[in-house]
Amino acid sequence: MSPDAPTHEPGRDARATAIIDMGSNSFRLVVYHWMPGGWFRLVDEIREAVRLSEGQTDGRLQPRALARAAHAADLYAAYCDAAGIDHIDAVATSAVRDATNQDEALDALSAGGRLPVRVLSEDDESRYGYLAAVNGSTVADGWFLDIGGGSLQVGRIERRHLTNSMSAALGAVRLTEAFLTGDQQSGKEAAALRKHVRKQLTTHDWIGGGGRMVGIGGAIRTLAVMEQRRAEAPFINPDGHRMTRDALGETIDLLTSLPVAERRGLQGLRSDRADIILAAALAIDEAMATAGCERLEVTAQGLREGVFFEHYLRDEVPPLLPDVRRTSVLNAGLQFEFDRRHAEQVARVALAAFDETARLGLHRGDSMEREVLWTAAMLHDVGVLVDYSAHHRHSEYLVLNTGLPGYDHHELAMIACMLRGHRKGVPSLKKVYGSLVREDDDARYLRGVALLRLSEQLERAKAGQIRELRCRLEDDELVITVGCEGDPSLPLWSGMAERQHVERAFGVTMRLESASGIEVPERPS
Amino acid sequence: MSPDAPTHEPGRDARATAIIDMGSNSFRLVVYHWMPGGWFRLVDEIREAVRLSEGQTDGRLQPRALARAAHAADLYAAYCDAAGIDHIDAVATSAVRDATNQDEALDALSAGGRLPVRVLSEDDESRYGYLAAVNGSTVADGWFLDIGGGSLQVGRIERRHLTNSMSAALGAVRLTEAFLTGDQQSGKEAAALRKHVRKQLTTHDWIGGGGRMVGIGGAIRTLAVMEQRRAEAPFINPDGHRMTRDALGETIDLLTSLPVAERRGLQGLRSDRADIILAAALAIDEAMATAGCERLEVTAQGLREGVFFEHYLRDEVPPLLPDVRRTSVLNAGLQFEFDRRHAEQVARVALAAFDETARLGLHRGDSMEREVLWTAAMLHDVGVLVDYSAHHRHSEYLVLNTGLPGYDHHELAMIACMLRGHRKGVPSLKKVYGSLVREDDDARYLRGVALLRLSEQLERAKAGQIRELRCRLEDDELVITVGCEGDPSLPLWSGMAERQHVERAFGVTMRLESASGIEVPERPS
Repeated sequence: MSPDAPTHEPGRDARATAIIDMGSNSFRLVVYHWMPGGWFRLVDEIREAVRLSEGQTDGRLQPRALARAAHAADLYAAYCDAAGIDHIDAVATSAVRDATNQDEALDALSAGGRLPVRVLSEDDESRYGYLAAVNGSTVADGWFLDIGGGSLQVGRIERRHLTNSMSAALGAVRLTEAFLTGDQQSGKEAAALRKHVRKQLTTHDWIGGGGRMVGIGGAIRTLAVMEQRRAEAPFINPDGHRMTRDALGETIDLLTSLPVAERRGLQGLRSDRADIILAAALAIDEAMATAGCERLEVTAQGLREGVFFEHYLRDEVPPLLPDVRRTSVLNAGLQFEFDRRHAEQVARVALAAFDETARLGLHRGDSMEREVLWTAAMLHDVGVLVDYSAHHRHSEYLVLNTGLPGYDHHELAMIACMLRGHRKGVPSLKKVYGSLVREDDDARYLRGVALLRLSEQLERAKAGQIRELRCRLEDDELVITVGCEGDPSLPLWSGMAERQHVERAFGVTMRLESASGIEVPERPS
Repeated sequence: MSPDAPTHEPGRDARATAIIDMGSNSFRLVVYHWMPGGWFRLVDEIREAVRLSEGQTDGRLQPRALARAAHAADLYAAYCDAAGIDHIDAVATSAVRDATNQDEALDALSAGGRLPVRVLSEDDESRYGYLAAVNGSTVADGWFLDIGGGSLQVGRIERRHLTNSMSAALGAVRLTEAFLTGDQQSGKEAAALRKHVRKQLTTHDWIGGGGRMVGIGGAIRTLAVMEQRRAEAPFINPDGHRMTRDALGETIDLLTSLPVAERRGLQGLRSDRADIILAAALAIDEAMATAGCERLEVTAQGLREGVFFEHYLRDEVPPLLPDVRRTSVLNAGLQFEFDRRHAEQVARVALAAFDETARLGLHRGDSMEREVLWTAAMLHDVGVLVDYSAHHRHSEYLVLNTGLPGYDHHELAMIACMLRGHRKGVPSLKKVYGSLVREDDDARYLRGVALLRLSEQLERAKAGQIRELRCRLEDDELVITVGCEGDPSLPLWSGMAERQHVERAFGVTMRLESASGIEVPERPS
């Protein structure tokens, strides 16, 4: 199963799958619409702050917590009945798994038999976390970390397979209730919590040695958004954020400096997490330290997405997307009804120009730079869906806000700025995305934007006219020769309109000619 | 033919129509994709600043101007050949119509016979302007005004039909060349221009008496955007802007205070219009004064749209949309792949609640307020296409940027703010859209947002559960009774979550019950 379906036809043969995640802190029902072999889209979500594991004593879930859980389950069942869901998959995690009164809990959760609840084993839970992490990032070797209300999972990933995993009762609600019983401002309590987490993690001798680490789940998303808000990031999206231990330490210090009641003003922190977020942050920091990772790659994925991918990719063992970035780009393009043929033509021409100019030594042919150019070329026109006249800006908005799993914010900033600059004026990368980019990105960006504009103009008729593109240098002149199908006049004329951008980016003069020998005549003035 | 097709299936049976507008100042090719009986979308545009009528003497178009025109025509022909356009409609206006060397001009414009150019008569041109105005606004009785590079048209509209029209050689390029030959800062030149325009307009004794006036064309759009930029409007979009003569007077003063070369820094003014915009502004002001109109309703439409509607609505005589606002809303919804059934359910429930509360005397049942509520209800979820998690904000972005012909900015501000406030926090209308709203809008907005939230929650399962809604007052308690299909528990529970918003907006307490007698039980805490 691949995401390469040729057309996007919402409403026809699409499936509706509801995943219900009955966690220790919150319950969440999400609904995906998806097309077998095609696109998928989250279309609805109902979150209930159930606090299932609250007040637990001797492993028994408490009557008040169970009443809240039963209420939420009833609502979800009524929703699924009425909404015409094709398939429901309800999963319960550590709160229920570890409950001494599990039968009673399942009775409350099943909504009178209307919801078929699966209690996930520790291995199941780790496996779904792993599927979410590997299908939501480019990590092939490294770690995943998931922290919920009840438990924490760490898994080791090698060549995109899960080789080891652990799960322990180190969730944010449980740790808060066990350790942070005061005003949470005491260093002593935090130190005890840290020690407890570390002790449990270090019993697993396979944890350590560093490498990439992917973080999933709501607490990690929350910490990412808090950090972005604090830094006044150019755009806010947990997916693709990179959280260093240093930055996490600053968040921990900030949280420790405030009593719970005063945290409610912190941007990005919803009030029903204000009391448990510190425990989560401390546990994450310990997990990173134990694994030897200085940076956490945040994704917007969670257990629910892991469960969803098992449905969406049911013919794959394990259910992994063959290429996360390609899936993200095609999924976004199909949602926004892009002209796929034109997008692929522009991408092909842009990469040909990139490779040719690299061959001539005009740049190093950096693979990240090439990937960013491909992505921008594929998505440059999605904004036409909103309105033609400022579609470059709408493309930027859509791509930043829809999220592209597999890309980090540094890459997204480059891509977004290229989208905005693919027609009309070329914005300054530094001015718009300053804090996300580095000084030396500017040359890459200007090359990318010039090649994107040139390719777009060479394909002005959106008809795949350019069959071939070759470059050569004659002294300081870059001669670009294109093999065209049909009349080359429009590609040549349009392409020459971008000459100044190419010349500025590559430090050459530019000439454009068709393989059939036609050069661009002067425009009458 | 109506825009009510049940599904939106891009790429299947869609048509591609190119309209080429060969004006006196600029040439423009636009491409519409459209579905007979369904949606339409502008997907491409190529503008060339040809200045066809530049330097005209004795009515002869000059060789240099004709060479530029021939070049543009060749490009357009090459584009249409390669791009697979189903139908091309190329029209030439007053510059060609009035040229003493028209044959020579047509030879240049026809691209060696590849473009079949129609020379529009004055009546044709007025008719297309009228079609653009009436299909792009809610004006049933009033005026349209179109000013291009070569000519100016005024038409009188009665019951959506064109009853009188005139066209005269009062276009911006021509007036500039005839009158503003100096640095354009002399009051004398402007006064002579004004006098000339007024004299020509007053020969038509049917022009006068005031009423609504719709403005179309590029010069008017430009003046609208300049004014919005100057006022730092909350969003920029010419469509739906209202231009008073006072504000136009300020723009004229500003333009007169600057030599042409210094106008290039003015926001919203593209450099190839900097020299002719003053003539356009002066002529518009004279036309408004002669017709007795103090306010111009700006649309994003132009001659091209008039020509397009003749294709899109070919079975209607005259080719008028039955309901401009409804078409705008459905066209936007279909573009953004809304769940039409759900949108219509929420709209129905919201209007029922609006009418019931008006019947009880809780508000006046204002028709504009009702219309705004309907629109917001229809489009509240379009942002899900971008991403679920902040879809209220994405709905706001999409609606403001896609443009909804038939709505003014005051209405759009209300609608947009309701979209943003339909879930999560309710923003302050005044804070976000301050300059577009009035003090007393706040109560309307809060009522609208409360009813939208309530309806959305009553239809939480998106399944049309609410068959009936009635309200009564018991002392100061508003009792809302809903007739539900199936289990009423989800609608009742979800609806009650919006109680505080309803209570705040209507100054009552609220109770919700199902017609079958079920009341909402307390949520376990």
